[in-house]
Amino acid sequence: MALSRSGMLQVLLVVAVALAVAPGVLSDPPPLQDFCVADLKAATAIDGFPCKPASTVVDDDFFSAAMVSGPSTDNPFGVNSTRATVSAFPGLNTLGLSITRTDLAPGGINPPHSHPRGSELVLVLKGEVMVGFTTATNQLFSKVVKENELYVVPRGLQHYQLNVGKGDAVFMAMFDAQSPGLVVPTLGLFATKPAMPMEVLTKTFLMGEDEVSAMKSKFVGF
Amino acid sequence: MALSRSGMLQVLLVVAVALAVAPGVLSDPPPLQDFCVADLKAATAIDGFPCKPASTVVDDDFFSAAMVSGPSTDNPFGVNSTRATVSAFPGLNTLGLSITRTDLAPGGINPPHSHPRGSELVLVLKGEVMVGFTTATNQLFSKVVKENELYVVPRGLQHYQLNVGKGDAVFMAMFDAQSPGLVVPTLGLFATKPAMPMEVLTKTFLMGEDEVSAMKSKFVGF
Amino acid sequence: MALSRSGMLQVLLVVAVALAVAPGVLSDPPPLQDFCVADLKAATAIDGFPCKPASTVVDDDFFSAAMVSGPSTDNPFGVNSTRATVSAFPGLNTLGLSITRTDLAPGGINPPHSHPRGSELVLVLKGEVMVGFTTATNQLFSKVVKENELYVVPRGLQHYQLNVGKGDAVFMAMFDAQSPGLVVPTLGLFATKPAMPMEVLTKTFLMGEDEVSAMKSKFVGF
Amino acid sequence: MALSRSGMLQVLLVVAVALAVAPGVLSDPPPLQDFCVADLKAATAIDGFPCKPASTVVDDDFFSAAMVSGPSTDNPFGVNSTRATVSAFPGLNTLGLSITRTDLAPGGINPPHSHPRGSELVLVLKGEVMVGFTTATNQLFSKVVKENELYVVPRGLQHYQLNVGKGDAVFMAMFDAQSPGLVVPTLGLFATKPAMPMEVLTKTFLMGEDEVSAMKSKFVGF
Amino acid sequence: MALSRSGMLQVLLVVAVALAVAPGVLSDPPPLQDFCVADLKAATAIDGFPCKPASTVVDDDFFSAAMVSGPSTDNPFGVNSTRATVSAFPGLNTLGLSITRTDLAPGGINPPHSHPRGSELVLVLKGEVMVGFTTATNQLFSKVVKENELYVVPRGLQHYQLNVGKGDAVFMAMFDAQSPGLVVPTLGLFATKPAMPMEVLTKTFLMGEDEVSAMKSKFVGF
Amino acid sequence: MALSRSGMLQVLLVVAVALAVAPGVLSDPPPLQDFCVADLKAATAIDGFPCKPASTVVDDDFFSAAMVSGPSTDNPFGVNSTRATVSAFPGLNTLGLSITRTDLAPGGINPPHSHPRGSELVLVLKGEVMVGFTTATNQLFSKVVKENELYVVPRGLQHYQLNVGKGDAVFMAMFDAQSPGLVVPTLGLFATKPAMPMEVLTKTFLMGEDEVSAMKSKFVGF
Repeated sequence: MALSRSGMLQVLLVVAVALAVAPGVLSDPPPLQDFCVADLKAATAIDGFPCKPASTVVDDDFFSAAMVSGPSTDNPFGVNSTRATVSAFPGLNTLGLSITRTDLAPGGINPPHSHPRGSELVLVLKGEVMVGFTTATNQLFSKVVKENELYVVPRGLQHYQLNVGKGDAVFMAMFDAQSPGLVVPTLGLFATKPAMPMEVLTKTFLMGEDEVSAMKSKFVGF
Repeated sequence: MALSRSGMLQVLLVVAVALAVAPGVLSDPPPLQDFCVADLKAATAIDGFPCKPASTVVDDDFFSAAMVSGPSTDNPFGVNSTRATVSAFPGLNTLGLSITRTDLAPGGINPPHSHPRGSELVLVLKGEVMVGFTTATNQLFSKVVKENELYVVPRGLQHYQLNVGKGDAVFMAMFDAQSPGLVVPTLGLFATKPAMPMEVLTKTFLMGEDEVSAMKSKFVGF
Repeated sequence: MALSRSGMLQVLLVVAVALAVAPGVLSDPPPLQDFCVADLKAATAIDGFPCKPASTVVDDDFFSAAMVSGPSTDNPFGVNSTRATVSAFPGLNTLGLSITRTDLAPGGINPPHSHPRGSELVLVLKGEVMVGFTTATNQLFSKVVKENELYVVPRGLQHYQLNVGKGDAVFMAMFDAQSPGLVVPTLGLFATKPAMPMEVLTKTFLMGEDEVSAMKSKFVGF
Repeated sequence: MALSRSGMLQVLLVVAVALAVAPGVLSDPPPLQDFCVADLKAATAIDGFPCKPASTVVDDDFFSAAMVSGPSTDNPFGVNSTRATVSAFPGLNTLGLSITRTDLAPGGINPPHSHPRGSELVLVLKGEVMVGFTTATNQLFSKVVKENELYVVPRGLQHYQLNVGKGDAVFMAMFDAQSPGLVVPTLGLFATKPAMPMEVLTKTFLMGEDEVSAMKSKFVGF
Repeated sequence: MALSRSGMLQVLLVVAVALAVAPGVLSDPPPLQDFCVADLKAATAIDGFPCKPASTVVDDDFFSAAMVSGPSTDNPFGVNSTRATVSAFPGLNTLGLSITRTDLAPGGINPPHSHPRGSELVLVLKGEVMVGFTTATNQLFSKVVKENELYVVPRGLQHYQLNVGKGDAVFMAMFDAQSPGLVVPTLGLFATKPAMPMEVLTKTFLMGEDEVSAMKSKFVGF
Repeated sequence: MALSRSGMLQVLLVVAVALAVAPGVLSDPPPLQDFCVADLKAATAIDGFPCKPASTVVDDDFFSAAMVSGPSTDNPFGVNSTRATVSAFPGLNTLGLSITRTDLAPGGINPPHSHPRGSELVLVLKGEVMVGFTTATNQLFSKVVKENELYVVPRGLQHYQLNVGKGDAVFMAMFDAQSPGLVVPTLGLFATKPAMPMEVLTKTFLMGEDEVSAMKSKFVGF
């Protein structure tokens, strides 16, 4: 069981990694020329990405079909995300914008997380999605959002999306960043490499080691 | 005819005014607190908007249904836009994001324009839309974009959207700005208050006054 | 027991609230005059704070003794923080800097958290503190830091500080923000107002309601 | 006639291209060292320019004589511009400033255009220049500006300069950007490569193809 | 003699105060609407200035004749500056630009100073001006600059302008800031209110009190 | 005597050079990925630093022991500074933060200076330090600051620190910049390479050449 769950959980991990590999941007510095399509294979690594030579830029560099269809949501959380951040859509480089498509199975959840470098504007394309976020005073703001309705999550705050409708749900999350980054607290505690010291976990949850180990075991695959 | 066109053209004007009244933002400065919901009726006018008292902020401040349905596209351009910039969606204040829904009748055009304070990420929801933009060297980049596909227009560049499909088309335009602003060159030449000096128009188009007057007459209603 | 824990836990809550009330800033926009000492009681709320009249500004406005002594760490986590963010030190307004002092009892932990609007430079003043942070790919970076040594946590990433020495420990956390904000995931799940829906919690932890309730009960006082 | 006009129009095109090739900057990000003189021939293309090795920087890198004399204004618009943006004045790199000199023959016009990445402060050196700009609500602000007088055009808005005096006129346009970029709507419609689809033009001007072709023919040389 | 010098020196002080009162801006945050003309008499003081109501804005708000003529340079330094920073030219508010005119008598000097919030682009209108600046490694870059030539001084660095021609000289200094601020080290040592402690002065110059007092006496009038 | 002083003064010079070589940053642009540890030996020079390959980043990249002990203060000013700006602590790259430790002998002074790219938050670790800064109107703000007390100096303003206690003093200066830069007016006048023209010095101090030469001789070693 752990194995198959582990297998399925990897889907979520792929999403996390994908978002992570994309150099996150928030409130990006302004562009310094008309365009700077990312050269993802440049030898020099900089803050953001170097530009492809302008003479090689074509119409398709500003186009992306990455989000046309949603991947499988057959995993414990019933969620899957497809990104169009700069590492998947190089034309976004220096432009301060990106977007992610998230599919939710009935009852599926995009578990609590935050984006270290961007605010998020949620546009529901299908179904009914409860969006909620918490502030520094632990106030919870939330709302059920339906087709073509919007909800906004301020920069860096912890939030979740839960499918509360009867069928599948799909939403777009737009960011003021070419790559907003991703912090999933549960993964950042239970699925790190190297492993988080047990003492940190027990003291964080005010629990014993056995309880923590049981909780952690559910995230083995990540 | 001019009258009824004028009447219809006012629809486009309303869109332009709406976008204009919304204080445009591009590559907005970062927020200085968890949230600052715009107080649209504040006595003091600042760069952006003052905040509602935090204690009066509720779940709905972060929610907008402004774009659920599209308005009539029965006008000479076959276009209509519905905005969710900060003046229509106060929760966006300080968060550096906004969105506009544009409906296009078959053959309808969102005529060439630019946003002085934002890049634009186009997400087509329905139909087939040709998106094109020009650079400072007058290079034209364009692409036909379909459902759930994306096209990005760099900050401040002139661009258009043309419905090239058989039915209606709908797209969302997302901006890295709480209000991106709007420059429609044709309106900025033919429909200004006070009127643009005739000498500017004839010299701009290298035309005589009669030709310019004929051209200008089509924009009387704006 | 829950009661006394609850009582003690309120200390941590006060810290959280204090940080929260201080309008967080990260990579703050630059100042537009020599100084703009915050007027914390201004009638108009803006992004950040209005300025005291320049003629009333005195030497002490740029001074703070807020961090001279550390408060009690007698609570379940063995931690207490004292802030000098803009709401406690108004002279910082528009200057893009703030600092927090954290005292840790032996074995005490500053539990995993993130700052939505700032990077953090840790300077240990006393004792031995393990500082760790996780990235979007769930890589864990950590180090034991001693007196006058430094560790830096990138903007928005989840991190913790654990006293691994024999005695008390004290460190200063400096931010590139007049108020960096605070996200404590455990509080943002178990101690929100209104309460987080149970369905969100069970699905986040892949647990049953009983397990979640037991876990949540330890955070009752927050 | 078209030929000679075409020939003459190329002067304006050169200006446009020159401004375009210069990587535009607006509200540039702040410098990260004392200076970073642009290495215009660097192999790596980035947002802006890499720096020359600091040890090779000399007094003259911060100097430019680009604007000492104005070029010929013998073209249909009676205008010519000489730029000192970063690609012509590498010492400006990362410093967020640039300047352009524009010469106007009697009656000459700098036709309506916008700068996607900068506000413009006009300083008239000689003659009488009408400066006008339009807002998003198509309000026209304008003024006749004389020697050593100033007029400011907000970022990204469409504006023109017309010589309304009896002799030649010269003005300096200063930008808060190392390269502000350039959008000339007429060129972006009639002189693009590849050509703008005729359908876009007819629908934009609410004209027939013949009328559009006649109008377009005047911009053949661009 | 001291008296009349003091009288004359006040001219320079007025310039310093004028620049100081103008809220300095450097690499200003971007505007959030088409324009925000400063309301210099607003009751609320903010970072920068509140906006005049948009409906009251007129053509002249974007115009300034402040620099048409230069004031007397009859003072010990042979210099006088006339500013068009935001406090003198309210239309610049939020636009990130300002300009100062400096007149130099033959042999006159604009003594070493720095602008805490802006780079400076020098445009000589008349005469021959030596412009020099020093870096953090105390490298001196300098150049004699003539009519319509340019020299750029990076942000915050110490620089001077010396009239090395035979007649009067005039230059414009343009800033990427609506008010760049001013630090004149000699005034900041010898002319402060309250007075700088003598111990600071003697230790700074490695001199005795008598020597310092003699030096300081020349700046009595400031 | 001059020789030994010169020898000792070199200590201060080293500090100045060290600060200078570190590319200063102020109100730095935000990071575009989780981290970008500086590659100090990269072949390409950019605004800031390129990043080490992410796969080679280790725990120690975010750690620095640079400030554990203070160097000798045996020089005419009785001061020595140890920096942890980005060139000494590469993990700070893109994170907008840095820190410097300054040791002051009894009576020692950190002479008047400014940081062109950052505000400074002073935290006294030991002793009693008078901190003072001057504004553009030459107003002097100052305060004696003791252990764990704070004083803030706004961006770019001239300031000094004087040990007014009986024993040694140590303070930390934190900056909102990965490298704030350094302007020491006395060094920028008397110790430049090439030498500042004598005419600039005599006119700046309203002194004769002999007096200036005497004053300058004390800074020979810098």
